[in-house]
Amino acid sequence: RSVVLVTGAAGLVGSHLCEELLKRNYIVYGLDNLSTGQIRNINWLNSLRDFYFVNRDVTDKWEDGFTRLDEIYHMASPASPKAYFKDPIGTYRANTIGTESMIELAGRHSARLLFASSSEVYGDPLTHPQTEIYWGNVNPYGPRACYDESKRMGETLCFIAQQLYGTEIRIARIFNTFGPRMHPEDGRVISNFIMNGIKGDDIFIYGDGMKTRSFMYISDLVDGLIRLMASNNSSPINLGNPYEEHNVLKVAKIIQELLAERGIARTRINYIQALQDDPTKRKPDISKAEELLDWRPTVSFEDGLRKTIDYFIELYK
Amino acid sequence: RSVVLVTGAAGLVGSHLCEELLKRNYIVYGLDNLSTGQIRNINWLNSLRDFYFVNRDVTDKWEDGFTRLDEIYHMASPASPKAYFKDPIGTYRANTIGTESMIELAGRHSARLLFASSSEVYGDPLTHPQTEIYWGNVNPYGPRACYDESKRMGETLCFIAQQLYGTEIRIARIFNTFGPRMHPEDGRVISNFIMNGIKGDDIFIYGDGMKTRSFMYISDLVDGLIRLMASNNSSPINLGNPYEEHNVLKVAKIIQELLAERGIARTRINYIQALQDDPTKRKPDISKAEELLDWRPTVSFEDGLRKTIDYFIELYK
Ligand SMILES: NC(=O)c1ccc[n+]([C@@H]2O[C@H](COP(=O)([O-])OP(=O)(O)OC[C@H]3O[C@@H](n4cnc5c(N)ncnc54)[C@H](O)[C@@H]3O)[C@@H](O)[C@H]2O)c1
Ligand SMILES: NC(=O)c1ccc[n+]([C@@H]2O[C@H](COP(=O)([O-])OP(=O)(O)OC[C@H]3O[C@@H](n4cnc5c(N)ncnc54)[C@H](O)[C@@H]3O)[C@@H](O)[C@H]2O)c1
Ligand SMILES: O=c1ccn([C@@H]2O[C@H](COP(=O)(O)OP(=O)(O)O)[C@@H](O)[C@H]2O)c(=O)[nH]1
Ligand SMILES: O=c1ccn([C@@H]2O[C@H](COP(=O)(O)OP(=O)(O)O)[C@@H](O)[C@H]2O)c(=O)[nH]1
Ligand SMILES: O=c1ccn([C@@H]2O[C@H](COP(=O)(O)OP(=O)(O)O)[C@@H](O)[C@H]2O)c(=O)[nH]1
Ligand SMILES: O=c1ccn([C@@H]2O[C@H](COP(=O)(O)OP(=O)(O)O)[C@@H](O)[C@H]2O)c(=O)[nH]1
Repeated sequence: RSVVLVTGAAGLVGSHLCEELLKRNYIVYGLDNLSTGQIRNINWLNSLRDFYFVNRDVTDKWEDGFTRLDEIYHMASPASPKAYFKDPIGTYRANTIGTESMIELAGRHSARLLFASSSEVYGDPLTHPQTEIYWGNVNPYGPRACYDESKRMGETLCFIAQQLYGTEIRIARIFNTFGPRMHPEDGRVISNFIMNGIKGDDIFIYGDGMKTRSFMYISDLVDGLIRLMASNNSSPINLGNPYEEHNVLKVAKIIQELLAERGIARTRINYIQALQDDPTKRKPDISKAEELLDWRPTVSFEDGLRKTIDYFIELYK
Repeated sequence: RSVVLVTGAAGLVGSHLCEELLKRNYIVYGLDNLSTGQIRNINWLNSLRDFYFVNRDVTDKWEDGFTRLDEIYHMASPASPKAYFKDPIGTYRANTIGTESMIELAGRHSARLLFASSSEVYGDPLTHPQTEIYWGNVNPYGPRACYDESKRMGETLCFIAQQLYGTEIRIARIFNTFGPRMHPEDGRVISNFIMNGIKGDDIFIYGDGMKTRSFMYISDLVDGLIRLMASNNSSPINLGNPYEEHNVLKVAKIIQELLAERGIARTRINYIQALQDDPTKRKPDISKAEELLDWRPTVSFEDGLRKTIDYFIELYK
């Protein structure tokens, strides 16, 4: 049976990925320092066979005890702007030193390594939708750079590892993903707007509400990641949902409507100052994933939102 | 008297910078691991008062013994494509971990830190000439990325340090610079073409010879760096020579002509395959440096080349 390490296991993506890998009969090690993740996301996995929680920082030197390791999913990194503004150094380290450390680990065990890159490598893109051959529009000297530049640097380290050591690497450029187990206070638009509604607080839109994102439900991402790991494509590949591009105001309205279905009243929408360098538009071109992974997202924005809303309602009880 | 640390002191830029700072009455520590630099560039400084050579790698932990430190010029990094293709990991480390290490050192001594960034942060630029507000066109997953992305990441680390610790930082985006003390085998176009001529070897042009660079003589750069350090501008600033943009074929011809002045015969010009991601055009807009530093380059390409040619002829004797 295959042995897999998932870093960032207590986070949104990591916890769902661990769960799915367990279903597929992997032996799963989940590593996390619990900085932006939540132990409740994996506590219940701990009681399952074949799941082992490793409470570590991915940037620390590690004398691992693996006798066998087949795959590494390196997902550990602050992921929301609020989280990375708060810890720019930790963000930089998770994606550079952390990636170096996972490259070493992969080398010791001849494991395959998948790196969680981000649509933020495209920055505030000047082409729309974004294909993998677009080199991006990132401000290296700004508040988002700790994240954007370290994701870019992480991709570069993967490139180097493949070239120098023959490491089998996979790079997922993940676009906005949401679902149950998001941290209710991590500041991302979906969790914010849902929690605003549930708590009866105002919604705050940064800027004029016309910026767009394309939203993918977590199960689609997990499926894409597992297919990517199994593929033999080592260059960066977009994973995102091009069918669900919405502007921020529309996201607020849709969430208000779905909350209303559950008897939760609309709250006021306020407009405040836009964030510096906040991307204007973002939508993946997923032709490459369609062709090479035979993958495309299948969950609609509203269906995903309903599940996420139910999760937060349950949590907030 | 002010105490200054120059990393990369045995290199082209570092050695000239140390020399000029000594002339200006600084106490100068020159740090280098002698990877791409040459001890002969600073041997003779060693015999001067007030110069101390520190044989170290900038990425190693350092229990420094400074009782006072006012300024740090962080120049240590492989600088030529040939050098960074050969050591991509060392290149990444010098500009990220090395920069972190210099940020810490600056913090301990409340020193000001100048980081040697590069015109390569613009990648293969889509605007011409390049201003500092241009965010660049860099391939994160390619052979030049170890250098380009780590210079970008270095700038980001400076941004973070300023924001988190209040470090006084300066960022020079240096465009192609040449002069005596270049390593004769470091592979850059100027040293290559001059050495080709001196040794009677063919010249090899990568691609069609129509790619351009703007060439700055070393003394102009040193003057700019010292002015930048003394200024109070902490955002990135271009230092380069916009008056001397030439294509590679023209560079070959000019060098052949100047070598002929010294009785050295023309050698054959060959065209071979272009390098991947080799920038097509590069020229700095230096309005910002002109305004904030009252600086502009003064040495012509031909005058600089004559000095450089004489250096290499002397060296090769
Ligand atoms: N969700 C998205 O929309 C999205 C989009 C693009 C990329 N990504 C990337 O996917 C990955 C997972 O994101 P997520 O949405 O699950 O975020 P998350 O915050 O829910 O999960 C990240 C997990 O990593 C852990 N972590 C952070 N730094 C660590 C360190 N140094 N050592 C060990 N653990 C550490 C956190 O505690 C957390 O459990 C991240 O790399 C993120 O950058 C996510
Ligand atoms: N010359 C140019 O055209 C140019 C253009 C843009 C940027 N720069 C930057 O300016 C700086 C100096 O460049 P240069 O032209 O003098 O190159 P160089 O190769 O002549 O000098 C670099 C020096 O740094 C030293 N070094 C490298 N890695 C080190 C490490 N880890 N620890 C300690 N020392 C280390 C080398 O031994 C060498 O002496 C570099 O940061 C370079 O990226 C130069
Ligand atoms: O993020 C979670 C947490 C829990 N569960 C399910 O809910 C059950 C009860 O979980 P528990 O009450 O132990 O969760 P906690 O109190 O730690 O949140 C578990 O067996 C899981 O099947 C889940 O699917 N996802
Ligand atoms: O409470 C919020 C949270 C986010 N946003 C906006 O929603 C978009 C998506 O932000 P998020 O932090 O979810 O993700 P990212 O910017 O990383 O795509 C951005 O334009 C944010 O400015 C907002 O207006 N209000
Ligand atoms: O890069 C150099 C090396 C030497 N010198 C001068 O040349 C003299 C003699 O240098 P030396 O022969 O010691 O140099 P080396 O043999 O180490 O190259 C020194 O006093 C310096 O003034 C110089 O200007 N630049
Ligand atoms: O022997 C050589 C060395 C360089 N070049 C070209 O000269 C230009 C400048 O190269 P260099 O390595 O000096 O600097 P950089 O590319 O970093 O600006 C590039 O287009 C190179 O492909 C060349 O044709 N022959």
